[in-house]
Amino acid sequence: MKRFTLAATAVLTLAAAFPAAAQFQKPEDAIKYRKAAFTVMANHFARIGAMANGKAAFDARAAQINAEIVNNMAALPWAGFIDGTASGDTRAKPEVWSKADEYKASALKMQEEVAKLNAAAKTGNLDQIKAAFGGAAKTCKACHDDFRKE
Amino acid sequence: MKRFTLAATAVLTLAAAFPAAAQFQKPEDAIKYRKAAFTVMANHFARIGAMANGKAAFDARAAQINAEIVNNMAALPWAGFIDGTASGDTRAKPEVWSKADEYKASALKMQEEVAKLNAAAKTGNLDQIKAAFGGAAKTCKACHDDFRKE
Repeated sequence: MKRFTLAATAVLTLAAAFPAAAQFQKPEDAIKYRKAAFTVMANHFARIGAMANGKAAFDARAAQINAEIVNNMAALPWAGFIDGTASGDTRAKPEVWSKADEYKASALKMQEEVAKLNAAAKTGNLDQIKAAFGGAAKTCKACHDDFRKE
Repeated sequence: MKRFTLAATAVLTLAAAFPAAAQFQKPEDAIKYRKAAFTVMANHFARIGAMANGKAAFDARAAQINAEIVNNMAALPWAGFIDGTASGDTRAKPEVWSKADEYKASALKMQEEVAKLNAAAKTGNLDQIKAAFGGAAKTCKACHDDFRKE
């Protein structure tokens, strides 16, 4: 049952990975949007991280709420990486566009791991949350290393 | 049944209206967070608005996706209005804090109307979406008039 749920979640996440739901008047609007989505996601991800790393008391309900928000947010930023947004107020590397397939794969991998984190948070088991948080955090770092300027 | 669903949605939304899910190292982090949440919400709300106002072709599935995102986002910004964040890079008026009860009521009213918009979007009926969008848009404007600087 759990395996099914995870698989179903992953499929749903993949299907919704790049919803053409956001639209932009100007390139700078797209940049502002994607940065905003990352900002919200990172805040809630960090809250889970504080619990996973023992820097905050474990609160199973808070972990669930935060993981659900992270999972929702994870689908959003990608719509903002439209053509014409490689320059401006952004740290995106040119590789986002020159290696678009790799970037997309990296984004999808993150969403898969975040879906696992969301499933782990629903169990209320801190060990499972720690493991899933670590997996998700690796995908953040990998993508930042490859596709974001310092 | 529809009335029940709407009522249940409203209750759930109210319960989740101010989740203590976001935390901040510094006041400016809280300001950045709440602005980011509004940015993402406004983008998806505007997409529904374009359909409601006939400026974009009606796409029932896109309206549903956008309304769901707006509904999720609507619970988030409030956690960022912590003490010590009345100044800085923000257009929040002092009334957010000096009339905190009114601000909270205004925020809750918006979330109720956004929940109705989400329910309307699920019907796929453009007339219902138009009506619910209008109701939600009024709550945006009311709160901006009272609690946000030009």
